[in-house]
Amino acid sequence: MALRAALRSKCVVSGLLSSSSRHACVSPVLRAQQRNNSTSSKIKVDFDQSSGVAVMHMQSPPVNSLSLEFLTELCINVEKLEMDKSCRGLIITSNQPKVFSAGLDIMEMYGKSPERCGEFWKAVQEMWLKLYGSNLVTIAAISGSSPAGGCLMSMTCDYRIMADNPRYSIGLNETQLGIVAPFWFKDTMVNTVGHRTTELALELGMLYSPAEALKIGLVDQLVPEDQVLTTATQIMTKWLAIPEHARQITKSMMRKPTIDKLTANREADINNFVSFITKDSIQKSLRMYLEMLKKRKA
Amino acid sequence: MALRAALRSKCVVSGLLSSSSRHACVSPVLRAQQRNNSTSSKIKVDFDQSSGVAVMHMQSPPVNSLSLEFLTELCINVEKLEMDKSCRGLIITSNQPKVFSAGLDIMEMYGKSPERCGEFWKAVQEMWLKLYGSNLVTIAAISGSSPAGGCLMSMTCDYRIMADNPRYSIGLNETQLGIVAPFWFKDTMVNTVGHRTTELALELGMLYSPAEALKIGLVDQLVPEDQVLTTATQIMTKWLAIPEHARQITKSMMRKPTIDKLTANREADINNFVSFITKDSIQKSLRMYLEMLKKRKA
Amino acid sequence: MALRAALRSKCVVSGLLSSSSRHACVSPVLRAQQRNNSTSSKIKVDFDQSSGVAVMHMQSPPVNSLSLEFLTELCINVEKLEMDKSCRGLIITSNQPKVFSAGLDIMEMYGKSPERCGEFWKAVQEMWLKLYGSNLVTIAAISGSSPAGGCLMSMTCDYRIMADNPRYSIGLNETQLGIVAPFWFKDTMVNTVGHRTTELALELGMLYSPAEALKIGLVDQLVPEDQVLTTATQIMTKWLAIPEHARQITKSMMRKPTIDKLTANREADINNFVSFITKDSIQKSLRMYLEMLKKRKA
Repeated sequence: MALRAALRSKCVVSGLLSSSSRHACVSPVLRAQQRNNSTSSKIKVDFDQSSGVAVMHMQSPPVNSLSLEFLTELCINVEKLEMDKSCRGLIITSNQPKVFSAGLDIMEMYGKSPERCGEFWKAVQEMWLKLYGSNLVTIAAISGSSPAGGCLMSMTCDYRIMADNPRYSIGLNETQLGIVAPFWFKDTMVNTVGHRTTELALELGMLYSPAEALKIGLVDQLVPEDQVLTTATQIMTKWLAIPEHARQITKSMMRKPTIDKLTANREADINNFVSFITKDSIQKSLRMYLEMLKKRKA
Repeated sequence: MALRAALRSKCVVSGLLSSSSRHACVSPVLRAQQRNNSTSSKIKVDFDQSSGVAVMHMQSPPVNSLSLEFLTELCINVEKLEMDKSCRGLIITSNQPKVFSAGLDIMEMYGKSPERCGEFWKAVQEMWLKLYGSNLVTIAAISGSSPAGGCLMSMTCDYRIMADNPRYSIGLNETQLGIVAPFWFKDTMVNTVGHRTTELALELGMLYSPAEALKIGLVDQLVPEDQVLTTATQIMTKWLAIPEHARQITKSMMRKPTIDKLTANREADINNFVSFITKDSIQKSLRMYLEMLKKRKA
Repeated sequence: MALRAALRSKCVVSGLLSSSSRHACVSPVLRAQQRNNSTSSKIKVDFDQSSGVAVMHMQSPPVNSLSLEFLTELCINVEKLEMDKSCRGLIITSNQPKVFSAGLDIMEMYGKSPERCGEFWKAVQEMWLKLYGSNLVTIAAISGSSPAGGCLMSMTCDYRIMADNPRYSIGLNETQLGIVAPFWFKDTMVNTVGHRTTELALELGMLYSPAEALKIGLVDQLVPEDQVLTTATQIMTKWLAIPEHARQITKSMMRKPTIDKLTANREADINNFVSFITKDSIQKSLRMYLEMLKKRKA
């Protein structure tokens, strides 16, 4: 239901996706601003030099949809932090009420050219590669619902803290929309909750309440809604006390085989996505879904 | 114990395996009967065109042993349903009291020629390949004990509902009989309950009570004995509400690597089985097992 | 904390490592003694011919550190039992109070030549290969704390029983020391507790209380401290009742892929270890760790 609410809003704002976003450009001025504490339209990064911890606030109204523009900004910010020797930890959270991220922006998949779809998918891959393979300690401070791509982003982190509000949900629910989570979404989930839980979750497109997500291991900890970020900061301190080099090598050992699978198949994965998503039947089911949301709203 | 009871009965009826079963033939008349609601000697299929759900009742007294004849009938029925565009879901259950299936028929492994053993094993593979890779939603309505091959058949399904009766049990207990679950039995169990639980289960040949099976994830749900089939029907409705194409692709993504492993090694797997099962030492331990059962019965 | 106490003691006794241990020699007299119930300096084996069960008591004061000499003795003893047709089960336990094994001897990694480090690492590999691939039923009777290499040794066994004392702990805590558990430590842990638990455990170098270890499946059973060995003996009886050949084939099927990975990469793994451990930065962090322990003791 959280997803539906999210998509309802997303549907409304889809027109906001400007044509400039199509070239994933970030202006030189914006780049300059981002050097330290950056504020761009969709993402705000607070970096505390003394602790070495950056907090990335997603602030793209209404539901932090992962559009091409959003993903591009996110990747640029992560890359900058990754290259900054003084940065050791990254907390990802949302400034939008009730939602962490509603996931991939459906409007990037509906009625778009194959070229544009391919460009979009490459950015989704890039986000995953950057975050799942990050040398930083990454903690997801999941302050609201986190369906589909929002769940994927959460799963790339080293640790997940979620607001203990039963109205929120998290999961890879792509199947419910008639689309398919690709193999690397699946691999990430198998690495997190195991094979059988993933099979059930993906076949049914399940969204879990925070309590259920904790039970199956999809999140690591639940805290009251107003303590998500402070808890993330406390947990981060614990992680940063671990000898860094050994932790990084260990993280890489755990994740490299999964990352290598996508790296070796990026082009094929893009082609698969484009040929699937541009099918008449899939476009039709996306249209029906969007129309249903419009009706519900009305 | 459930297994022992089952085998005790099986032992008695082993003589019922007619020589005609050796050629795995299904008469033309039988084939004709099976086109819609079919009734053959060992399997009854009720197909409800309106819901798109078929219920396959195993009814081979006394314990639905998986003989060559039984497996052949089962595969023919599954294949027919698979090719019928109007069929979307398959519930597998048993009409025999207290037992879902006692598993592979020991009499097919004892005192048989290598050729016959190979033919039998190929049918076991075929059953697994058809069910584990089925495009249908498959639900096991486990109305009684389900050892060995019965457990394997259950694990091929998308969802498992078991009668909550502590006298029933389920598990891959081959080791207890001195035989070995092959790699694809093992892979299926690892995919269901994870590596360590499978290691313990297979090394000890463990049979689990319904409560234990639920705890380790070997079954998904327990219900009172008289509600197994009705619950399966309700759960099926939920599964059929999922966009079908996306669900099928997802299922294939989860299971294809496991299926490909057997497909690429069918001949070698048959040879392994035949050379193992026809060993004097194994035949001797099967004989001792059967004699022990006879004595118990007397 | 158990580890720190253990290492504190180990630090003190490091001078006891005699130069003779560098050649991993075992005198002919010692070999003769070991034929039946053997007593060598570091390991005592009680073998009961009637039951077919050997109990290996680790008795290297103060904390059963896995030095080259210790590992060599251990491997010789395991190999002898493995070749003895009358031996079917092996229980591994400790005669030292409060500790099962404190793991790899840090003094074997600090200030040693690359050749010596390589020799040491080869012995660690050998211990793992022998135990993880053993045809015997192996049970760890974990009578005290079991960090790092002690945890690895426990995980190689078929079954783990731990003393239910909250002051004891178990886990692969290498990262805490600034070193890295290699891929086969990781693989063994993934096979035992799954991918995500292993990721968390290894990145944070976690040590678990017995209750926590039971919860995540790192051990199989907790018993009062004075019942660890008697329980192990009872459980062994249950395992030995399983048809042996089928159990051995099953165990091999579960573990062979993991064993093959190391067997195919032993030299590279040794080179990796040596080049990592002899780095100035790693030697420095080991020195700081040892100095910290000395200060704590003072």
